[in-house]
Amino acid sequence: MTGTVAVNGEVRRLEDLRLQDFLQSFFFGAGFFETLLVEQGAPMFLERHLARLRASLGVHAGCVHAPPPEVLTAGAVRETLRQCLEADASLGPRFTGVAKLVAGDARLLLSFRPLPQRPPDEGVVLDAVEDRCYRRGDPTLNHKSVSYLRQYAHLGRGTVFVNEAGELCEVPNGNLFFLVGDAVVTPPLEAPCLPGIIRAVLLEEGRLGGLPVEERTLRREQVEDVRGCVLTNSVSLSLAVPRLLGRELPGSAALAGHARAVVREYAQRDA
Amino acid sequence: MTGTVAVNGEVRRLEDLRLQDFLQSFFFGAGFFETLLVEQGAPMFLERHLARLRASLGVHAGCVHAPPPEVLTAGAVRETLRQCLEADASLGPRFTGVAKLVAGDARLLLSFRPLPQRPPDEGVVLDAVEDRCYRRGDPTLNHKSVSYLRQYAHLGRGTVFVNEAGELCEVPNGNLFFLVGDAVVTPPLEAPCLPGIIRAVLLEEGRLGGLPVEERTLRREQVEDVRGCVLTNSVSLSLAVPRLLGRELPGSAALAGHARAVVREYAQRDA
Repeated sequence: MTGTVAVNGEVRRLEDLRLQDFLQSFFFGAGFFETLLVEQGAPMFLERHLARLRASLGVHAGCVHAPPPEVLTAGAVRETLRQCLEADASLGPRFTGVAKLVAGDARLLLSFRPLPQRPPDEGVVLDAVEDRCYRRGDPTLNHKSVSYLRQYAHLGRGTVFVNEAGELCEVPNGNLFFLVGDAVVTPPLEAPCLPGIIRAVLLEEGRLGGLPVEERTLRREQVEDVRGCVLTNSVSLSLAVPRLLGRELPGSAALAGHARAVVREYAQRDA
Repeated sequence: MTGTVAVNGEVRRLEDLRLQDFLQSFFFGAGFFETLLVEQGAPMFLERHLARLRASLGVHAGCVHAPPPEVLTAGAVRETLRQCLEADASLGPRFTGVAKLVAGDARLLLSFRPLPQRPPDEGVVLDAVEDRCYRRGDPTLNHKSVSYLRQYAHLGRGTVFVNEAGELCEVPNGNLFFLVGDAVVTPPLEAPCLPGIIRAVLLEEGRLGGLPVEERTLRREQVEDVRGCVLTNSVSLSLAVPRLLGRELPGSAALAGHARAVVREYAQRDA
């Protein structure tokens, strides 16, 4: 994480922020976050990220202190981001990397970090199952809150979260899409899973590699019918899953490529 | 919360703490906490709280940065607490209130707050059910982490968390004991529920109001057989539940009194 941050639109140094001003998030996990890809100074899908953030804050209005509404607009965040990049020579106006927004304690904190180091064609093997945690219909998992320990503990371990009905839900850092039968399917929000931005874009576009994209539950035993799998999130956009729960999936690389192209094209129209 | 705190045994002012030093807890909820009752300067069940904290840190050694082991001993915490009370005239060596320990980011943070304002005989009505979140056997809910939003959002709303099997688990701020048949029963840890300190003491003592205390599941429809209910936690010790899911429970007040007496007696032996 870099030293330049912003709080409610004001450029600050991370080392000058006081824990005291973020106590509700710190003590109770009462905050929400967004992780955005920034390319050449431009944040991708900013409006969608802010809409999700505002939605989570709205649902939790009784317990999480939202930042002032005027700092939660795309215009305000764009301007703050621009000021941060300008203020920090290690970032610069053409910064490419990750921006993180955290909303809680009546503040919006913007921070930056480099892109994860990952060879472009490296996939993510998902061979572990955590099937004791996720509850079908759990509304809390539809929000990207800083109460994130369960996901954090499974990062990098190739874990798929599975609910009590044996349905695949998501991975700690993204949504899943499966090539199965004549469609590309992704678990419904009720699985539960996060309403990922890339997930929403792919569902809206509706077609991937010539096949329809649909929300549909996929049970663990149905993995034997899966021919390809893609992990999506806002930073990596789309990653191939070359092996899913022991099953080799040579179709994943092409599917991930298709997904990336769809997202890139959508982002270009969106910009 | 008062301004005097301690970090890894060093007395500090809250306003001097930097967010930068607590980022893993703040961003990812990667920390654990304990809330202790302090009476006349003495923390109740300190050894038990620290044992639970160390256990949670041990289970999460790969993802939560534990404080140095030497600050996690009862002797060290007692001495730090003493120094804080001495340093702050608003606390003082005979302070009665709540101490909170948060462990994460390689630090142990000790802070203080007043006792909750509550008339001594006021009970807690539990008439709301949240039955979409808890999953039977979920190990994450056996740890008191700062990923606490689900509980925090339900504080003060009279909520009982119920798992997918329809079993009563716990409330946001405590464990439950039910007077049913010829026993006092409390849900097993697998419900799941937090391994509460007061819960453990009552189970160890094994008898309450002349009846055995047992871990046993209680399904929602069995509430009609319940004659009394008590909410336990480390600050209030034991609170009567005069109404549980619409059922009036006149037996709760006496049961809560018994529980409090058992805990007080145990604490005295323990001290």
